[in-house]
Amino acid sequence: MAEPSPKRFCGLRPRVILLGDSLTQQSFAPNGWGAALADAYQRRCDVLNRGYSGYNSRWVLQLLRSGGGFPGDSADAATRVVTLLLGANDAVLEGEKSQYVPLEEYKSNLRDIVSIIRERCPLAKILIICPPPVCEWQRLEFQKERFGDQATGKPERTNENTGRYAAAALEVAAQLSLPSVNLWKLMQEVPFDWSEFLCDGLHFTEKGNTFVGKAVLREISASLPNVAVVPCKHTGAYGNSGSSSEIAIDCPFWDDLDLENPLKSLGA
Amino acid sequence: MAEPSPKRFCGLRPRVILLGDSLTQQSFAPNGWGAALADAYQRRCDVLNRGYSGYNSRWVLQLLRSGGGFPGDSADAATRVVTLLLGANDAVLEGEKSQYVPLEEYKSNLRDIVSIIRERCPLAKILIICPPPVCEWQRLEFQKERFGDQATGKPERTNENTGRYAAAALEVAAQLSLPSVNLWKLMQEVPFDWSEFLCDGLHFTEKGNTFVGKAVLREISASLPNVAVVPCKHTGAYGNSGSSSEIAIDCPFWDDLDLENPLKSLGA
Repeated sequence: MAEPSPKRFCGLRPRVILLGDSLTQQSFAPNGWGAALADAYQRRCDVLNRGYSGYNSRWVLQLLRSGGGFPGDSADAATRVVTLLLGANDAVLEGEKSQYVPLEEYKSNLRDIVSIIRERCPLAKILIICPPPVCEWQRLEFQKERFGDQATGKPERTNENTGRYAAAALEVAAQLSLPSVNLWKLMQEVPFDWSEFLCDGLHFTEKGNTFVGKAVLREISASLPNVAVVPCKHTGAYGNSGSSSEIAIDCPFWDDLDLENPLKSLGA
Repeated sequence: MAEPSPKRFCGLRPRVILLGDSLTQQSFAPNGWGAALADAYQRRCDVLNRGYSGYNSRWVLQLLRSGGGFPGDSADAATRVVTLLLGANDAVLEGEKSQYVPLEEYKSNLRDIVSIIRERCPLAKILIICPPPVCEWQRLEFQKERFGDQATGKPERTNENTGRYAAAALEVAAQLSLPSVNLWKLMQEVPFDWSEFLCDGLHFTEKGNTFVGKAVLREISASLPNVAVVPCKHTGAYGNSGSSSEIAIDCPFWDDLDLENPLKSLGA
């Protein structure tokens, strides 16, 4: 093992920041995809959730412009990965809800958000995640449960329209040479009924969350190997001395501790 | 809704810090108890994992004394909750492993760790979590799987001995007037085979993790209401405008946004 730098023991850990709407805010639910990232980065990065339920790209951009949306401290510069998952709210049908954002503005907002991330987190790799598919019959059932007789009986989002926003996110990613995860497409390609990924036509079930966590980690491994963590070959675990990453571990693994002189290993 | 302070939108969030050994480091595994806390504190606190697999109270104390174990930035002072779960490694049988720490030193280490937390996180409520029970037959099976013919056939930890460390942790909590979660006892009181909580006699299964998450959140609600989050009555969710806490939300809930002038709501 390389001699650990005492700097490592001052507790400053790099970060992974998850920026988005409710699909991000709820990502620490059971089997949540945010939790899957936190598990993968254990002892290496703090995974911070900056999901804002109900927000569209316009409001998130505004929030970032006003100085919010990130921890806002000096360690922002140490952020290694930022995931950006927006569009599910932008894609409500025009006139249905105040969340609607026109397609062209959505693209422009994503580009502006990426600029701000690059400025505030210059070291971070940015991963664009496309909005997932919408299950219209589940949306209608959810409306009935929620609003009873007041339900409009028309979905406020359609899968086809959200598909346009997913394609737009991909377009922005390609323009800016950023890796992307096309959830909209990937989720619909599975060899079973993809509605199992969603609980109300919009948000993830545990199965959906598990799928998203794997898809995001796979894309990080494939496109961003410098910030990936390779799990232990034998146990599949991310947090023992069999795992590896260019991102250093906070303190030596316990089986690497100099037990004759642990004080030294711990930087004292 | 009270007028949100623009300060809230600078991205500084308070923290919950989870300090401990592998039972903490692995707490973002599927259905992990750390993830359950992150879900409960969504939009309110960043939940940071400071679990160090294999470490005992002596090494964690040393780490803290050397300046590590916390983010180490100015926001440490904004930490609202610190959970402290140590003892599972201290309790290995004497002579079995280098992790062993005598009972009296374990108590003294816990007291010293609490002192350091109080100094670095003066606003934080500290919750002592006792080590969980040990399932000896699972430990022996794990030994065989791991070491084959080299397995000693004797458990390196016993449930009875870990029970002594759990009692010692309770004693320290009582001395220092801190709330505690007696996992060792609670887990053995369930009306089914408690070995289902453990995967290798020591670490949590998903069922065990779910149990721990609920137990910790229940204790926070009961003993530390000022830092608890009450979920929405109707949906059980922690992250919509039906949830409540004395810890403020980062940015207004979307249904509280002034849609005529969202820029204003977002502190611009």
